[in-house]
Amino acid sequence: MVFIIKPKVGEAQIGNFVKDWENKGFSTILSVGTEHTAVCLIGNTAAVDMDHVVETNDIVEYAKRVTEQYKAVSRTVHLDNTIVDIGGVKIGEGFFTVISGPCSVESEEQIVQVAKAVKASGAKLLRGGAFKPRTSPYSFQGLKEEGLRLLKIAREETGLPIVTEIMNQTQVPLFEDIDVLQIGARNMQNFDLLRAVGEMGKPVLLKRGMASTIEEFLTSAEYLMSSGCKSIVLCERGIRTFETMTRNTLDLSAVVLLKQKSHLPVIVDPSHATGIRSLVSPLSKAALAVGADGLIIESHNDPSKALCDGGQSLDLLQFEVLMQELKIRAAIEQKQL
Amino acid sequence: MVFIIKPKVGEAQIGNFVKDWENKGFSTILSVGTEHTAVCLIGNTAAVDMDHVVETNDIVEYAKRVTEQYKAVSRTVHLDNTIVDIGGVKIGEGFFTVISGPCSVESEEQIVQVAKAVKASGAKLLRGGAFKPRTSPYSFQGLKEEGLRLLKIAREETGLPIVTEIMNQTQVPLFEDIDVLQIGARNMQNFDLLRAVGEMGKPVLLKRGMASTIEEFLTSAEYLMSSGCKSIVLCERGIRTFETMTRNTLDLSAVVLLKQKSHLPVIVDPSHATGIRSLVSPLSKAALAVGADGLIIESHNDPSKALCDGGQSLDLLQFEVLMQELKIRAAIEQKQL
Amino acid sequence: MVFIIKPKVGEAQIGNFVKDWENKGFSTILSVGTEHTAVCLIGNTAAVDMDHVVETNDIVEYAKRVTEQYKAVSRTVHLDNTIVDIGGVKIGEGFFTVISGPCSVESEEQIVQVAKAVKASGAKLLRGGAFKPRTSPYSFQGLKEEGLRLLKIAREETGLPIVTEIMNQTQVPLFEDIDVLQIGARNMQNFDLLRAVGEMGKPVLLKRGMASTIEEFLTSAEYLMSSGCKSIVLCERGIRTFETMTRNTLDLSAVVLLKQKSHLPVIVDPSHATGIRSLVSPLSKAALAVGADGLIIESHNDPSKALCDGGQSLDLLQFEVLMQELKIRAAIEQKQL
Amino acid sequence: MVFIIKPKVGEAQIGNFVKDWENKGFSTILSVGTEHTAVCLIGNTAAVDMDHVVETNDIVEYAKRVTEQYKAVSRTVHLDNTIVDIGGVKIGEGFFTVISGPCSVESEEQIVQVAKAVKASGAKLLRGGAFKPRTSPYSFQGLKEEGLRLLKIAREETGLPIVTEIMNQTQVPLFEDIDVLQIGARNMQNFDLLRAVGEMGKPVLLKRGMASTIEEFLTSAEYLMSSGCKSIVLCERGIRTFETMTRNTLDLSAVVLLKQKSHLPVIVDPSHATGIRSLVSPLSKAALAVGADGLIIESHNDPSKALCDGGQSLDLLQFEVLMQELKIRAAIEQKQL
Repeated sequence: MVFIIKPKVGEAQIGNFVKDWENKGFSTILSVGTEHTAVCLIGNTAAVDMDHVVETNDIVEYAKRVTEQYKAVSRTVHLDNTIVDIGGVKIGEGFFTVISGPCSVESEEQIVQVAKAVKASGAKLLRGGAFKPRTSPYSFQGLKEEGLRLLKIAREETGLPIVTEIMNQTQVPLFEDIDVLQIGARNMQNFDLLRAVGEMGKPVLLKRGMASTIEEFLTSAEYLMSSGCKSIVLCERGIRTFETMTRNTLDLSAVVLLKQKSHLPVIVDPSHATGIRSLVSPLSKAALAVGADGLIIESHNDPSKALCDGGQSLDLLQFEVLMQELKIRAAIEQKQL
Repeated sequence: MVFIIKPKVGEAQIGNFVKDWENKGFSTILSVGTEHTAVCLIGNTAAVDMDHVVETNDIVEYAKRVTEQYKAVSRTVHLDNTIVDIGGVKIGEGFFTVISGPCSVESEEQIVQVAKAVKASGAKLLRGGAFKPRTSPYSFQGLKEEGLRLLKIAREETGLPIVTEIMNQTQVPLFEDIDVLQIGARNMQNFDLLRAVGEMGKPVLLKRGMASTIEEFLTSAEYLMSSGCKSIVLCERGIRTFETMTRNTLDLSAVVLLKQKSHLPVIVDPSHATGIRSLVSPLSKAALAVGADGLIIESHNDPSKALCDGGQSLDLLQFEVLMQELKIRAAIEQKQL
Repeated sequence: MVFIIKPKVGEAQIGNFVKDWENKGFSTILSVGTEHTAVCLIGNTAAVDMDHVVETNDIVEYAKRVTEQYKAVSRTVHLDNTIVDIGGVKIGEGFFTVISGPCSVESEEQIVQVAKAVKASGAKLLRGGAFKPRTSPYSFQGLKEEGLRLLKIAREETGLPIVTEIMNQTQVPLFEDIDVLQIGARNMQNFDLLRAVGEMGKPVLLKRGMASTIEEFLTSAEYLMSSGCKSIVLCERGIRTFETMTRNTLDLSAVVLLKQKSHLPVIVDPSHATGIRSLVSPLSKAALAVGADGLIIESHNDPSKALCDGGQSLDLLQFEVLMQELKIRAAIEQKQL
Repeated sequence: MVFIIKPKVGEAQIGNFVKDWENKGFSTILSVGTEHTAVCLIGNTAAVDMDHVVETNDIVEYAKRVTEQYKAVSRTVHLDNTIVDIGGVKIGEGFFTVISGPCSVESEEQIVQVAKAVKASGAKLLRGGAFKPRTSPYSFQGLKEEGLRLLKIAREETGLPIVTEIMNQTQVPLFEDIDVLQIGARNMQNFDLLRAVGEMGKPVLLKRGMASTIEEFLTSAEYLMSSGCKSIVLCERGIRTFETMTRNTLDLSAVVLLKQKSHLPVIVDPSHATGIRSLVSPLSKAALAVGADGLIIESHNDPSKALCDGGQSLDLLQFEVLMQELKIRAAIEQKQL
């Protein structure tokens, strides 16, 4: 159940209202928007007489039941679009933000070269895997701490904030200085990791699990937000279906639905969604057209020699060409690229 | 196995080459493009010495094995993009062709009103169901012959060619005067229907089955083309996945892959793909951006009273607004809308 | 809405009750069981006052809303288990009936040899494809009419009733003398075929579509029954999923659910479900254990030379061994094999 | 590449052979079976001349390439069936071992009562969730450490070894005294957890991820085994498909394939696979018939009041009846229940 508070009601009054509910045994979520503040009750609200609360509380404009399992990330509770701000780089309404970089950080030379190139082409954040979740224990597992160190060098050289994947909660101390923590598709329902990362309070890029429904995806985001994370970027990266010609099936309908049901920004990963280089560019344009807030694209200085996922990586020229094509189209969508 | 014939080789010579192979027990497909003519062998070609054929036949430029089950629809056999021409209306390279109309033809007034409106907004063909495949035997099954009659009146009034679904081969005589025969998703592997419709030689709109792979889709198109149909438009309309928030999952990657692997035009049906009106507009823009050659969109003069699928139909104003938005974007893609 | 009629009410009285409803514009389904007769209304029953009908009609024991789209095949309307009788061969409660034979009829010698062998091993019906639905137009399409002729010879020689697939309604006259008409997975929602076959009044083996839900499957059976078919055998044959190691994923849960929701017998096709010979035997035993009423299994006198699906066919010895194993287990399930 | 060592070759000789390869930069897996010992190389073996190795090494019987990503768990590397032994309770060939207990440990009274009852009915291990992975952060998350304590009391009272889920690697110290560590479906590709649990060297029950292929499942087991775990029990628990009538689709074909491709025992979880109580019993019998080595079944003293998954739990009487039915059938399969 959510109570939308009347405009201009003071913090103290809202605080008292919240405290009353907590004294009755409910947990609460306080959602402060630019125009609306809302208080959402967590707990068994079946017996709460919604109309009575509205009638007897001057500060409440109206009340609604929240039937979804997710609350804090729901648009019912928070009406405004959330714009995530990463050291000045924005993801959300009015922007089309492109994150790029290699699947794996391989060397200082590689990551710095890629970072400079993608920045020059218009990328606003640098991605790169240090800890790599790999299907087989015998595959390259990433440079680990060394990979993080090299990412920070690339950040130093370019000013691009860095996005990289955290695989388990014992790694939290290593990620204190990372700008955006990525939670991978396979970890979307690693609930302890969600909670631990949520408590860090840093921006998070949460990827949709490859067999996760939209509702489960948002409910995993709720784990993050209910643990303290305010800056969540959702990422559609393809779901597993019977079709084998692509690695996964990119679900662009999900982008629209996620933005209808939640206030969070949504980006698209066309590289992992398809696993095929020649699909990255057309699907990137489609993601922009459908209303996504950005992209995360794998790029590499020499895809044929990449230690991981070379077949889906753009080379630096292909990335530049794509960015030019996106710029023209972003203008039409009135988004800043 | 396909033999690409050298430019400027005469018909007679090619005819002899074909006859030779048929005498040896092979079937052949003759594919005449603007620049290249190709002869494709059907049968057990394992024992054919490809190099020997090229060396001993002056008219052959080169030869290739066709490993796919589809041949005539394959880009390996036919290099040029096919542009389907329906009485002057074109679907294919350089065009973005929108087909619109109601799920079901309901009355003369309805279909004529919708036809006029969608034409005014820029649609180039009129769709409307006369024979309706319905999950339940107790649901409205369409106006049948009467529906076809009303469609022709609407064509008369507007000049729009008409697209409507044929459900079985006994209906062939009823569809002689229909411009484009639609084969529905549930009939994509109704092979006898494919053959019967293929033999009519009329343009066909073939929808992807909801559990069909891209390869199966193209192999069904091969049934049509090998039976005599030269004008096939492929239609991606969503596949069945575990996600339940949309009726199906629109697979826009398939559009790109279909155009890579085949020379046929590909359009998108965002209405049936999602079943949700608010998704039709964003997914239409995404289809354009990804490289589709057009759309088939359900529209209705009064969706709330539609006998079928009202929840996914645009009203006539929504359709007009969408067409305006598409026009701006088609210009950028250098396509004529 | 279904009205369960009191025991021992005469036909005439029930006839009048039915006529009353039809006069009011409803269609009706009359379901006569051994203990209960039921009258089910088809149409808009929203305004019918169920309690009032029960109170004012002496012959009605009780009434229920039928919320499913299927009515005549629903256990709500028909409480007893239906046992399908094919010239004395029974499929349903108390029996475990095995149908076997080759994917395709290839020659008189082949089909007669297989028929004799599978009969000797305990099969009660002979299957064999005459008209074959094949993904590619260039694959062997069956012996067609000749195949039907050979099947009848095999029936003559062995006494086994024959099961074979009808692919479209123009074939109806060819199938008048066939004992059980099979409707294949790809045609499960070929509604015109369902209706045409239903009107023949002959026993039908209906296979589940590879992307069809249990509810859609039963609603397709409703097309058959509402057209006049009283003897329907449902067949679970695997659904399409992301797993590629098997051709399909056999859904044995569906067997239990189909029997809970419907009164029709349910058999299992382990050959097409998996496409792998070594899985046929264990899944056959599992089908028996889960409560299926029988199996349809591909067998061949020389699988390595089969024109179709040899890789999933048992040879005649393997079939015999399997039947021995099933006999021991059928005894425990108190089913006659 | 795997080298099968000749019978009766001494440990020292094998040790030297292994050391040679490690000196050349390969990792090795040593697999000791009752009849065959095998040495499997991990690394880039493309340049290794297999025949030369066999010819020049007296101790090698033959060599094979292992094309799968999994090695140590592969039947190619380890020919004998592995029987997992948990304090005398065996899972594997010749046994049909049933694990039962509630979804969540709720109280000492509950877990002890259930443990005594399932033991009396023939269960050989006790399951019970202490740490619960829940889709929503607002659902009951288990009694945690207290739950582990209560499980140990139930073990004390009944002698049943206990199986319970570990959710992340920081919990390793808490699980030192647990008999079998369960890794849940959502964590099947939590690679860091697999490694940490593998290093503990304790028996592990690994559940198949709901969108994981059979190959991915075995490759996750490879993480465990390559980290030191010798006792792995695989558990098929249903995969996610388009069918919504069951929670998941139980894939019994996978049981057969897992046992063909791997030497590890495989059990089935019919409770989570379907989410429906009335399906548990028929699918349990089917699992036995298909060749599974056991079951894990949710049971509860009062399912209607269960804090979690009551709808799929058997009550104690239903469990007892099922066990009776399984005993009769296990005798036929020559398995000890």
